Amino acid sequence: MTRKEVRAALPRWRRAVHAHAEEGWTEFWTTACVAQTLQGLGLTPRLGREVLDAGARMGLPAPDVRAAARRRAAAEGADATLLARMGDATGVVVEVGPVDQPVVLALRFDMDALPLQESREPEHVPAAGGYASRHAGQCHACGHDAHVTLGLGLAACLQAEGAPALRQRVRLIFQPAEEGVRGAACLRAHVTGVPWFLAVHLGLGQPSGTLITGATGLMASTKFDALFTGQAAHAGKAPEQGRDALKGAAAALMGLHDLPRYGSGENRVHVGCLRGGTARNVVADRALLQGETRAVTCDMAEDLFARAREVLAGAAAMYGLGCRIDLAGQCPAADSDAAFAAQLARWAREVRLENGCAAFARVGERVSMGASDDAATFMRAVQQQGGQAAYAILGSSGPAGHHDPRFDLDESVLWPGVLWLESVCRHLA
Amino acid sequence: MTRKEVRAALPRWRRAVHAHAEEGWTEFWTTACVAQTLQGLGLTPRLGREVLDAGARMGLPAPDVRAAARRRAAAEGADATLLARMGDATGVVVEVGPVDQPVVLALRFDMDALPLQESREPEHVPAAGGYASRHAGQCHACGHDAHVTLGLGLAACLQAEGAPALRQRVRLIFQPAEEGVRGAACLRAHVTGVPWFLAVHLGLGQPSGTLITGATGLMASTKFDALFTGQAAHAGKAPEQGRDALKGAAAALMGLHDLPRYGSGENRVHVGCLRGGTARNVVADRALLQGETRAVTCDMAEDLFARAREVLAGAAAMYGLGCRIDLAGQCPAADSDAAFAAQLARWAREVRLENGCAAFARVGERVSMGASDDAATFMRAVQQQGGQAAYAILGSSGPAGHHDPRFDLDESVLWPGVLWLESVCRHLA
Amino acid sequence: MTRKEVRAALPRWRRAVHAHAEEGWTEFWTTACVAQTLQGLGLTPRLGREVLDAGARMGLPAPDVRAAARRRAAAEGADATLLARMGDATGVVVEVGPVDQPVVLALRFDMDALPLQESREPEHVPAAGGYASRHAGQCHACGHDAHVTLGLGLAACLQAEGAPALRQRVRLIFQPAEEGVRGAACLRAHVTGVPWFLAVHLGLGQPSGTLITGATGLMASTKFDALFTGQAAHAGKAPEQGRDALKGAAAALMGLHDLPRYGSGENRVHVGCLRGGTARNVVADRALLQGETRAVTCDMAEDLFARAREVLAGAAAMYGLGCRIDLAGQCPAADSDAAFAAQLARWAREVRLENGCAAFARVGERVSMGASDDAATFMRAVQQQGGQAAYAILGSSGPAGHHDPRFDLDESVLWPGVLWLESVCRHLA
Amino acid sequence: MTRKEVRAALPRWRRAVHAHAEEGWTEFWTTACVAQTLQGLGLTPRLGREVLDAGARMGLPAPDVRAAARRRAAAEGADATLLARMGDATGVVVEVGPVDQPVVLALRFDMDALPLQESREPEHVPAAGGYASRHAGQCHACGHDAHVTLGLGLAACLQAEGAPALRQRVRLIFQPAEEGVRGAACLRAHVTGVPWFLAVHLGLGQPSGTLITGATGLMASTKFDALFTGQAAHAGKAPEQGRDALKGAAAALMGLHDLPRYGSGENRVHVGCLRGGTARNVVADRALLQGETRAVTCDMAEDLFARAREVLAGAAAMYGLGCRIDLAGQCPAADSDAAFAAQLARWAREVRLENGCAAFARVGERVSMGASDDAATFMRAVQQQGGQAAYAILGSSGPAGHHDPRFDLDESVLWPGVLWLESVCRHLA
Repeated sequence: MTRKEVRAALPRWRRAVHAHAEEGWTEFWTTACVAQTLQGLGLTPRLGREVLDAGARMGLPAPDVRAAARRRAAAEGADATLLARMGDATGVVVEVGPVDQPVVLALRFDMDALPLQESREPEHVPAAGGYASRHAGQCHACGHDAHVTLGLGLAACLQAEGAPALRQRVRLIFQPAEEGVRGAACLRAHVTGVPWFLAVHLGLGQPSGTLITGATGLMASTKFDALFTGQAAHAGKAPEQGRDALKGAAAALMGLHDLPRYGSGENRVHVGCLRGGTARNVVADRALLQGETRAVTCDMAEDLFARAREVLAGAAAMYGLGCRIDLAGQCPAADSDAAFAAQLARWAREVRLENGCAAFARVGERVSMGASDDAATFMRAVQQQGGQAAYAILGSSGPAGHHDPRFDLDESVLWPGVLWLESVCRHLA
Repeated sequence: MTRKEVRAALPRWRRAVHAHAEEGWTEFWTTACVAQTLQGLGLTPRLGREVLDAGARMGLPAPDVRAAARRRAAAEGADATLLARMGDATGVVVEVGPVDQPVVLALRFDMDALPLQESREPEHVPAAGGYASRHAGQCHACGHDAHVTLGLGLAACLQAEGAPALRQRVRLIFQPAEEGVRGAACLRAHVTGVPWFLAVHLGLGQPSGTLITGATGLMASTKFDALFTGQAAHAGKAPEQGRDALKGAAAALMGLHDLPRYGSGENRVHVGCLRGGTARNVVADRALLQGETRAVTCDMAEDLFARAREVLAGAAAMYGLGCRIDLAGQCPAADSDAAFAAQLARWAREVRLENGCAAFARVGERVSMGASDDAATFMRAVQQQGGQAAYAILGSSGPAGHHDPRFDLDESVLWPGVLWLESVCRHLA
Repeated sequence: MTRKEVRAALPRWRRAVHAHAEEGWTEFWTTACVAQTLQGLGLTPRLGREVLDAGARMGLPAPDVRAAARRRAAAEGADATLLARMGDATGVVVEVGPVDQPVVLALRFDMDALPLQESREPEHVPAAGGYASRHAGQCHACGHDAHVTLGLGLAACLQAEGAPALRQRVRLIFQPAEEGVRGAACLRAHVTGVPWFLAVHLGLGQPSGTLITGATGLMASTKFDALFTGQAAHAGKAPEQGRDALKGAAAALMGLHDLPRYGSGENRVHVGCLRGGTARNVVADRALLQGETRAVTCDMAEDLFARAREVLAGAAAMYGLGCRIDLAGQCPAADSDAAFAAQLARWAREVRLENGCAAFARVGERVSMGASDDAATFMRAVQQQGGQAAYAILGSSGPAGHHDPRFDLDESVLWPGVLWLESVCRHLA
Repeated sequence: MTRKEVRAALPRWRRAVHAHAEEGWTEFWTTACVAQTLQGLGLTPRLGREVLDAGARMGLPAPDVRAAARRRAAAEGADATLLARMGDATGVVVEVGPVDQPVVLALRFDMDALPLQESREPEHVPAAGGYASRHAGQCHACGHDAHVTLGLGLAACLQAEGAPALRQRVRLIFQPAEEGVRGAACLRAHVTGVPWFLAVHLGLGQPSGTLITGATGLMASTKFDALFTGQAAHAGKAPEQGRDALKGAAAALMGLHDLPRYGSGENRVHVGCLRGGTARNVVADRALLQGETRAVTCDMAEDLFARAREVLAGAAAMYGLGCRIDLAGQCPAADSDAAFAAQLARWAREVRLENGCAAFARVGERVSMGASDDAATFMRAVQQQGGQAAYAILGSSGPAGHHDPRFDLDESVLWPGVLWLESVCRHLA
């Protein structure tokens, strides 16, 4: 493709992905689409089971849900050979650059959609344009469709007609299941030995024209499901023969929220869902509690979740219950490296559009997140091996915030974003 | 019909009703079946909307559930004219005896099934016999199919060929929605001015051959749904913007179980179901708690439920929530009148089978229930107007207890039961 | 003494004990008084350390409290030799009858007062009569002063001038610390091998002139102190460094009250006291919770207290706390033997006063208690070795209920009570 | 006094105040001492009732506690005339400078000690030096003895022999009851119309030689006592006749800790003390809960305490209890004005000791507090009327942290502190 063709392809790619919104661990169509596109660029993507540590996947939907999503992807035209290669797993990893050279930069692009019904109102541009999500209850209201597009655009530019070859390799990681911080852990191996890492997220309150190269304060988070199991009994005739799972869950719910604030910085503890019992006159023999913890440092996160486990186990013991705790997602705390962010900002200021204008009206180096992103798993891994990592924000103005059914993105920011990412690759590799 | 034909019909009727098990407020097929059979006996039953105080129905299923059940009844052969007459309501009331004479005795026969999947194992007689419930998740595991049969058998005997006419009238009430004590309140008018009332329940731990004519200690019970409503918010970014319905529900769950034992006698408080929240990282804006109270006296029941309301309202207030409390069922405490029970026992001892044997191997006058039955609504109404009421237990041996998927009844106890009921009618009317 | 002198002594004895009200385990003056009186009757009482299994004492006050009470007793005239013999322990055991004969009957008389300020109002007879408790915050508002008097009166009658000697021995146990069911366990050995046991309690709602010879339904009870220990920390600067003992205690308080009602009969669970924390801005490192369980059977009592332990341990585990549980009192459930009660009633109906009148206007054999008494420890021990036991109630009309500052007893019931007890002894021994 | 004499007096003053440690609202000796010393400098202090809005005092100890402290002060030599003038209230306000000129600067010096037993170990300097607190359970472990000394030293320097007169007035506020943020509210009127305000606190983790002129992030705090009132009843015989104050308090304790973290910044909620109930077998009719909230902004503080009130009222309503909430202390959030802090820092850098050396090895302008101080009440009042305020920290190395029984201060930092304060006064007035 020519660079002009790449630029033209960006909205097309984004809209296709947007229309096929798929929740975490069910991105079969998206995986096939990404892999096929990369193949078309002359690259050799690996996908699904070929790249994933399947045992490290957290918060997996039920097998039948995933199987149904896979069948749907096939029905919607996903390439059969690619589906066969990926197996029951999603995600794509691809390298650009000379095979005999080291990978010096890894980039993360997340692919999953949200469990949310997209707006069908006429003022919602994807609805008016006919590319709103075809999948009821699932939509790209977080901008991951743009992230996929940035990854494809970057690959296409690096491979564009007449483009100079990289001297070293860069690796593009198209990650599944970022929502709920479930997917990065099983792809962590792909940053081993890689000295530079970059993730980019669209929007996050920044307007179109802005690029922030180094977010800080990504909070560690642990997502967990706690299943309390007791003994059913008739609540009128023999309540003493029961062991009430709901009492344990209620005590745990209160105890979890009771966990201390820390003098060393902010944290969060939350139980969002609780379901238990079968009938009003029967002692509940099962109750499922779904919660999460967040913390500004990994130490605090570890201490906090250890305490959450104590609360859960203690509440179960109070009422003679069993309690199984399943991790449903987990990511560490992370900060962008200041030096790397500064370098990325300098390069960003140099990026020019075709008309010679600066690609970005404003380039910042630092902003505080106060939220979590699975990219932190990669960032921390790279930093712990002595490398540098950054989490960038590509501003995008729109009618509504993330996770809102009317969320939409400004497609005009995609091309400047791609140009900057290409520039980063060419500087580092 | 001849009496011999009636006796032969009892298992047939019971199995038909058993096979068409319908949960409370959806007994459309059963209602039509009962009404049609009564018409065949030359009686003039009234049904559904014709007899019910529809506004007093408690714990109604959703309209679409009831509509689907009505369509199913039609598909299963329920008479269209009868369906039209009953409207969206179930239940049958019929009188036997001279129209210009007062009603001196009312009998209650309940018709609803349980939300339970019937056993399909070969050793389960209804399964082996091909008359297990056709309706998935619904079955007659409490014996109400037998109660319906007793009512039809009684009517048939009173109307049998050559049978003497009653001098006064008796009223048979085929009540819907006994489970959850939801249905009697809307049929209470049918015992107004009636001096005698009798209900009979199969089994309850008594073996075949036993008849107990006066159970005592029927506990008052109130069933309630409490819906806590709050405000959703992102649990990571702005938890303070939420109002957490789950916290209110959990505090209420603990507070309800904390309600005092009473020195004046036994009670029960139980929360059997709790469901709330939509996602682990969102403050729950709704939580539904389903519970019940029980008490050995009406005064205690009233005081206890007033306190339960305080707990619910207070728990909502703690967290700035709304709380709507819906009554889903309610019955008073009741005891059988000892004198009436003694009279009923004397008559029972006189009942003879065709072969001259006593109908019952053992007749008792009194047993303590320690449970609730909607019949108490009728009993109390009759007693408050100066009449006498009794709650009888017709023993039936079987492989499993009530509310067990393998519950089955001993059909041989039906005919003695019918004979006794007929004897009671002929003595009183 | 002559019997006439005994009768005259009863109010004197009672008022002296009343005026020296001493709480459980501090009955030093009372012990000395009882022992000295018995010595005066020619008996050989054993006391304090001589009769007690000191290690089995439950709910002991702090050593300094007991030492102060002992000093006070000395100051109030308690015999120095007796004080020396009793050591730091209270209680008296004495036998009447021939030394070489077996003990066939044990009787229990409890001696301790309540931690309650006696009324000083002029209409309160002991206040008006100048024999209200001299000890602030302690008074005989449960009638144990009468019990001590009955025991002394019985001994005096058995030893009265001209009275026939017993053929076998009876044992009188003057028990300390009945309140809180703390004292019987350490005197249990004194009923070993004894075939008959009798305890008598004044009042309990029965009017003067009534005697009930066999109370039933004495509830088992366990009294416990649970000390939660955590870690203090500044609640503003570093709450996470603390382990909050109050959170554990509050969770336990709610969990204990949440323990199930039993279908098999009544129970009680109660936390009456909770104290924890040192300052509002410090994480509490200690919290003491004082509670009790009650149950109508020993099996239920055991199951219930095992669950209470689970609640306490689980609540401590929830918050990373230690939890030490101390038994502060314990007694089993008990019923009077019906045959023994009937025999006791027959003898009671035969008792005549000096004027030939029946000693009791009404004698009953059975009443349901619905409360606990430490006598159950003796009753159960005797019954388990094949003997028979009874718990009698000697009616006494008065202005206020037990445990009320204005409680008073009818001294005129003492003499009939003594006569009946003497009759029992003479029949059995 | 000469300046040299002032310097020599500082340790003497400090040790006298230290030895007479008095808790909040009982600083009678300290008040008299301060007033007498100021009189000796030729100033005209006002004190106690003369300067306090007595009705605005929060968290007052019981009247007998205060009366006893006043008697003790008299016995320890407090001037009788001054004691008479102060009445039952403590605190001193004095002005320096020409009476006809406006007050341009107010300084706050707090005087109260902590409810803590001072170390008696030989390595504890005040113990070794013979000036440890004479008052059992009360000691200056927070450094307020130093604050009083700084105030006296400042007054003495301003009045020293040969010192130039001020052109305008400065006001020194010797505040009682800073601990628990109870005392500033009743002295707020003394900063009305004053354009500059300065408070200084010793230590706070800063070493000797350091001066920080502008602390930020003083958290708002509200201290409260919640008294739950119910109805006593016998927990065995008639628990239903009770209304259990402990249940309400326990539910509130859990609900208060459950209050949300805020996305807008840190907060704290804590219950430090809970006491309720009289006996283990009696339903508790009273329970007292003592707690506090903290927040980084006044808006959050207001919202948070409003929610705390909801929790308390709701928990009481759950169990049919009364709940009285008393404010026991309250202060707003505050930040030092950056411009003022910068000015204060410049002046600090210019301060020279007698030997020409800089008074401070290090001068900083800003540090984050993460704690509360009653000075915030004055700061906010001044800022709201357009003035500027600062909270300074005078470093002091020592063997233990604040609120530790072994806390001690470095007396050598007092003189540099006084010199700087004098300099500030001379620049501004």
